[in-house]
Amino acid sequence: MTPPNEDIGYIFTTFMFLVAGFLVMWMAAGFSMLEAGLVRSKNVTMQSLKNVSLFAFAAIMYYLVGYNLMYPGDAWTIQGMLGAFALTGLEPVGLADTATDLTYASVGSDFFFQLMFCATTASIVSGTLAERIKLWPFLIFTIVLTGFIYPIQASWKWGGGFLDADYGFLDFAGSTVVHSVGGWAALAGALILGPRLGKYKDGKINPMPGSNLTLATLGTFILWLGWFGFNGGSQLYMDTAANVADISRIFSNTNTAAAGGAIAALILTQILYKKPDLTMVLNGALAGLVSITAEPLTPTLGAATLIGAFGGVLVVLTVPLLDKLKIDDVVGAIPVHLVCGIWGTLAVVITNPDATLFGQVFSIVVVGVFVFVVSAVVWLILKATMGLRVSEEDEIMGLDKAELGMEAYPEFYRG
Amino acid sequence: MTPPNEDIGYIFTTFMFLVAGFLVMWMAAGFSMLEAGLVRSKNVTMQSLKNVSLFAFAAIMYYLVGYNLMYPGDAWTIQGMLGAFALTGLEPVGLADTATDLTYASVGSDFFFQLMFCATTASIVSGTLAERIKLWPFLIFTIVLTGFIYPIQASWKWGGGFLDADYGFLDFAGSTVVHSVGGWAALAGALILGPRLGKYKDGKINPMPGSNLTLATLGTFILWLGWFGFNGGSQLYMDTAANVADISRIFSNTNTAAAGGAIAALILTQILYKKPDLTMVLNGALAGLVSITAEPLTPTLGAATLIGAFGGVLVVLTVPLLDKLKIDDVVGAIPVHLVCGIWGTLAVVITNPDATLFGQVFSIVVVGVFVFVVSAVVWLILKATMGLRVSEEDEIMGLDKAELGMEAYPEFYRG
Amino acid sequence: MTPPNEDIGYIFTTFMFLVAGFLVMWMAAGFSMLEAGLVRSKNVTMQSLKNVSLFAFAAIMYYLVGYNLMYPGDAWTIQGMLGAFALTGLEPVGLADTATDLTYASVGSDFFFQLMFCATTASIVSGTLAERIKLWPFLIFTIVLTGFIYPIQASWKWGGGFLDADYGFLDFAGSTVVHSVGGWAALAGALILGPRLGKYKDGKINPMPGSNLTLATLGTFILWLGWFGFNGGSQLYMDTAANVADISRIFSNTNTAAAGGAIAALILTQILYKKPDLTMVLNGALAGLVSITAEPLTPTLGAATLIGAFGGVLVVLTVPLLDKLKIDDVVGAIPVHLVCGIWGTLAVVITNPDATLFGQVFSIVVVGVFVFVVSAVVWLILKATMGLRVSEEDEIMGLDKAELGMEAYPEFYRG
Repeated sequence: MTPPNEDIGYIFTTFMFLVAGFLVMWMAAGFSMLEAGLVRSKNVTMQSLKNVSLFAFAAIMYYLVGYNLMYPGDAWTIQGMLGAFALTGLEPVGLADTATDLTYASVGSDFFFQLMFCATTASIVSGTLAERIKLWPFLIFTIVLTGFIYPIQASWKWGGGFLDADYGFLDFAGSTVVHSVGGWAALAGALILGPRLGKYKDGKINPMPGSNLTLATLGTFILWLGWFGFNGGSQLYMDTAANVADISRIFSNTNTAAAGGAIAALILTQILYKKPDLTMVLNGALAGLVSITAEPLTPTLGAATLIGAFGGVLVVLTVPLLDKLKIDDVVGAIPVHLVCGIWGTLAVVITNPDATLFGQVFSIVVVGVFVFVVSAVVWLILKATMGLRVSEEDEIMGLDKAELGMEAYPEFYRG
Repeated sequence: MTPPNEDIGYIFTTFMFLVAGFLVMWMAAGFSMLEAGLVRSKNVTMQSLKNVSLFAFAAIMYYLVGYNLMYPGDAWTIQGMLGAFALTGLEPVGLADTATDLTYASVGSDFFFQLMFCATTASIVSGTLAERIKLWPFLIFTIVLTGFIYPIQASWKWGGGFLDADYGFLDFAGSTVVHSVGGWAALAGALILGPRLGKYKDGKINPMPGSNLTLATLGTFILWLGWFGFNGGSQLYMDTAANVADISRIFSNTNTAAAGGAIAALILTQILYKKPDLTMVLNGALAGLVSITAEPLTPTLGAATLIGAFGGVLVVLTVPLLDKLKIDDVVGAIPVHLVCGIWGTLAVVITNPDATLFGQVFSIVVVGVFVFVVSAVVWLILKATMGLRVSEEDEIMGLDKAELGMEAYPEFYRG
Repeated sequence: MTPPNEDIGYIFTTFMFLVAGFLVMWMAAGFSMLEAGLVRSKNVTMQSLKNVSLFAFAAIMYYLVGYNLMYPGDAWTIQGMLGAFALTGLEPVGLADTATDLTYASVGSDFFFQLMFCATTASIVSGTLAERIKLWPFLIFTIVLTGFIYPIQASWKWGGGFLDADYGFLDFAGSTVVHSVGGWAALAGALILGPRLGKYKDGKINPMPGSNLTLATLGTFILWLGWFGFNGGSQLYMDTAANVADISRIFSNTNTAAAGGAIAALILTQILYKKPDLTMVLNGALAGLVSITAEPLTPTLGAATLIGAFGGVLVVLTVPLLDKLKIDDVVGAIPVHLVCGIWGTLAVVITNPDATLFGQVFSIVVVGVFVFVVSAVVWLILKATMGLRVSEEDEIMGLDKAELGMEAYPEFYRG
C-alpha cells in the first residue's frame, strides 16, 4: 500500500469533511422534527423557532470565538485552558499561498465540520426545556454554550488540552464532548426551570403525549442518517486506504448500534409494559447512536450492537427514573445524551486497549462538573435578570399563541 | 486514460459505497413517511413503529447470517445454493493486514451498502399489509425475509449463483432481486391476511384515503433521492473515469425514469378520471424508479424516460385491477414493486444486447416462485401459531390505540 | 502543489457534481414542503402535486431542449442567442470513445447537476401563485420556463453568451440566473393572476396563515442543506487542492449567510412586531442563502454573514410592501428570490474586484426584462386560452376538493 500523493489525500479528506459536515448539519433538522413532534401542538411553532435560531446562533458564535477557542494550537502554553480569542479565518481563495500545508484538509472544511458538532450540542438542550422556557433566555444560553462552554471543554480533548495530553481520554466522536455536554446543560436547565405545569401533580405523573409522532419518527431517521457523518467524519482523514476502510467500519458500527438500541427498547417495553412504545424505540435508536459515538471504530459489529443495545436499555430504565425525581425532560434528551453519553464513554475501555477506566471516568467527571456548574450559573443569572419561564397563563395557553401569536397547525388543533 | 493506482481506486470506490449506502439507508425513512402518510390516522403510530423496527431487524439479521449467505464465495461448490452461515467480519482497524486486496472496496463499505438493499426489501412489505397485521408476526416475517429469503435468492444472482453463472440473468440494481422480492412477499401476505374490514363490501370498493399526503409526498421525494445511491452505487466501482462516467449516466437515467413515470401517471389519471391523482403520481414516480432499476446504465435518456413512463402506466392500470381481485394493498406496493419490477427486468432486453428474454423470464419465475412459496409458508405458519390479524374490534379502533396505546396525532384526530 | 493526473481529477469533479446534484435535487423536496406548509389545508394536495409534477416536467424539458439551448458551445457564432436545439446525449457506456476529454467532468454529471438548477427555477414560481391557479396552465408555463426561458437567459451567462463575454457579468451560482428568474416569472404571474379572494378586502390585509409550520420548517432545513450543493457545486471543478479548498470556503460562507439572514429576521421581527415571526425567520434564512449565491467564494465569513443578514432585513421589509401593492405572494418567494437575488448580484462588487457595478446592473436588467416580458406574454396567452384561475366557488372550497377530489389531511381538517 502506497499512500496517494499529498494533493490527492488533501482533496479526499477535505471532501470527506464536507460530506460528513452536511450530514451533521442535517441533524439540526432531525432535532427540530423530533422535538416538534414530541411537544404539544400549542408549543410547536416555538420549538421550531428555537431550533432554527439556535443553529443560526451556533454558526455565528462558533465563527466569532468558538473555533479558535477550541483549537488554541500553540497558544496552549501561553494562554492556558482558554486558548485564543479570534475570528475564524479561512484560507485565501484558490489557496493563493503556495506554501499551504496539504497533509490534512482545508480550514474551511474543518471549520464547517466542527461547527456542526457545536450546533448539535445546542440542539440537545432545547428539547429538554421545551414548552415552558422563554425564547430569549434560551437563545442567550445557546450563545454562551456555543461560543464558550462547548469550545472550552472541547479544547481539553480535541484541541490537544490536558484531558487528551495528560489523561489519555478517548472520545472518538464525542459521547462526552458533545452529547453529555448537551445533557449536562439540559439537566442544569431542567432543575432550575422546574417541570411543566401539571406534569407532576398529587404524586402522579401526568403524561403529555407528543403531538406528531410521524415528525418524531422522521427526526429520528434524520439523526440516524446524520450520525454517519458525525462518527465517520471523526476519523479526520480519508487520505489512505486504511483510513477509508476505518470510516467504513465506523459507518457499519454506527448503524448496528442504532439497530441494537432500537430493538432493545422495543423488546424491553414489550416485556415491561406489554405494549411496545414508539417513542422509546426512537429514543432507543438514538441511545444506541450516542453509546457508540465515543468509540465507533474498534468494536466488532457484534460488540457495537451490544453497546448500542445496552444504551437502549438504559433509556427505557432512566426515563421513568427522571420522572420519579420530578425532572421534566420533554423529549428524553437527558437519558439519551447524558446517560448514554456516559455509558458510551465508559464502554470505550471494553474494545479499545488504549483507553483506561481512570482516564475515562476522570474526564467524564471533569467535563460534567465544569459544564453543569457553569451552565447552572448562567441559567441562574438569566433567571434572576430576565426570568426563564413564561407566565402560568402563557404556559397553559401555549407558547405559540402567547409568545409568538402564531400557531403551527391553525386549522387542525382543537385548542 | 490511465487508471489511478490501486490505493486511490480503493478510496474512490469505498467512499462511493458509503455515500450511496447512506442514500439507500435514507430510503427507509422514505418508506416510513410514504406509508405513514397513506394509512389512516388510527394506524400511523403502528406503521411508524413497524418501519423503524424492520430496519433495525434487517441490520441485525444481515449481520448475523444474511451477508455471508448472500456472498458464499468459494463455498458455492461445497455447500451449494445455501452458501455459508457466519457472522459478518470486517477488516481489522487500519487494515492491519498489509496484504489487503485493494482492487475493490472495503468489506465495511460493501456490507453497509448491501445491507441497505436487504432492508429495502423488507420496507416494501410493510406498506401492503398495513392497518390489520399484528406487530410481532410482521416482525418475525421480516427476520426470516432479511436473514434468509432475501439473501438466498440474491446469492443466485449477485453472489455468483446459477442465475448469474448459467442463465445470464441481468439485474443491475435489483428490479427483481430487491423490488419484486418485496412485492412477492407482500402479495403472499396480502392473500393470506385478507383485506381490511369494509374495504370490499357489497361488491363495492370502499376508498380509505391516506391521512397525510404531504408525508406521502415527502416519502416519495426521499425515495427518489435515495434511488441515486441505489442504482448509482450498483455500478460497484468508481476507480476509473469510465466507471464514474457510467455512474453519471445512471444518475441521469434514474432521474428521468422517475420523471417519466410521474408524468405518465399524471396524464393518464387526468384522461381516465378527469382529475389527476396525487397518490398515483407519487406511485408513478416510484414505478419509474423500479422500472429502470434492472438496467439504469445502457438506456439513452429517452429510452429511460419511456421505460419509466411505461411503469407509470402499469401502476395506474394495476392498482384498480388488484382491487377487482380484492387484494388489499394499502400503499400500492405490489403494482409499484412487483409489477414494475417484472417490467423493468424484461425491459433490460430492449437496451442491453447481453440480456436474453429467456434468461430474464426464467429468473423472474424462479425468484418469484421461490419467494412467493416460502413467504406463503412462513405467513401460514405465523397465522397458525400466533395469528396474523388483530381482532375486528382492534382493527376498527385502530392499531395505535388497541395494540400500542399511543396515538400519532392525539390532538388532531377526530376518532 | 502538483495537480493530480487527469483521470483522478475527472473522477473527483464528476463525483462532486453527482453529490452536489443530489443535494440540489433534494431542494425540490424542500420547496414542496415549504409551500405545502404555507398554504391552507384545502390547497395542500394541489400544491404537492404541482411540486412533484413541475420537477418531472423540468427533467424532461431540460433533456429535450434545455441543456443544449443553454450550452450552445460553438453554435453561438452561427445561431446566435438561441443556441442549438437537440436532445441531450450522454457519453457512451464505459466511455467507449477512448478520446474522451478528461479535463472536466462527465456530461452525465454535468447534465444532472445543471438540470437541478433549471428545476429550482420552476419550484420558485409555484409558491407565489398557490391557492388560486389551475393545475394545467401552471404546468404548461413550467414547460415553457424550463425548456426555453430559463435555458436561453442562462446561456447568456453560463453558456458563454454576451453577458458573460461582453459585460463581465458575475453570478457564481445564480442569484440572478436562477433565483431572480424564478422571481420575475412569479411576479409576472402574480400580477396577471391577481390576489387570492379575500386577501385584500376593504383596505385591509387579511392574513391567511399557513397550515403546517413544521413542514415549512422542514422545507427550510432541506433547502439550507441542498444549498451546499447548489453553491459548492458551482465551483465546477474539484480536481485540485485549490478547488476543493474553494468549495470549502463556499460551504462555510453559504452556511453563515443563512445564519445571518435568519438572525437578522429574528431580531428585526422582535423589534418591529414585538413577537418574533417563525415564517419570517425561515424566509430570512432563505434570503441569506439567495443573497450569497451570486458570490459565495470571495467573501470572508464575516462579510458573508453580513450579506446574508442584509438579505434577511430585505425580506422582513419587502413582504409587507408587496401586500401594500396588493401583490399576493403566498410563500414570500418574490422577496426571497427576486429581491434578494438582485441584492446578492449587486453585492458581488463588494467582495469581488473583478465585478463591475455596471456589468451587474446591466445583466440584472437584461435578464429581468427578458424573463418578465416573456413570462407575462405566456401567462397572458394562457389566461386568454384556457384561463388561469379556478372559479370563485372552487377557490373557496379549496383546490384539493374542487380540482382533485382528494384532501391532504382528510381526518384533521375542519373544513
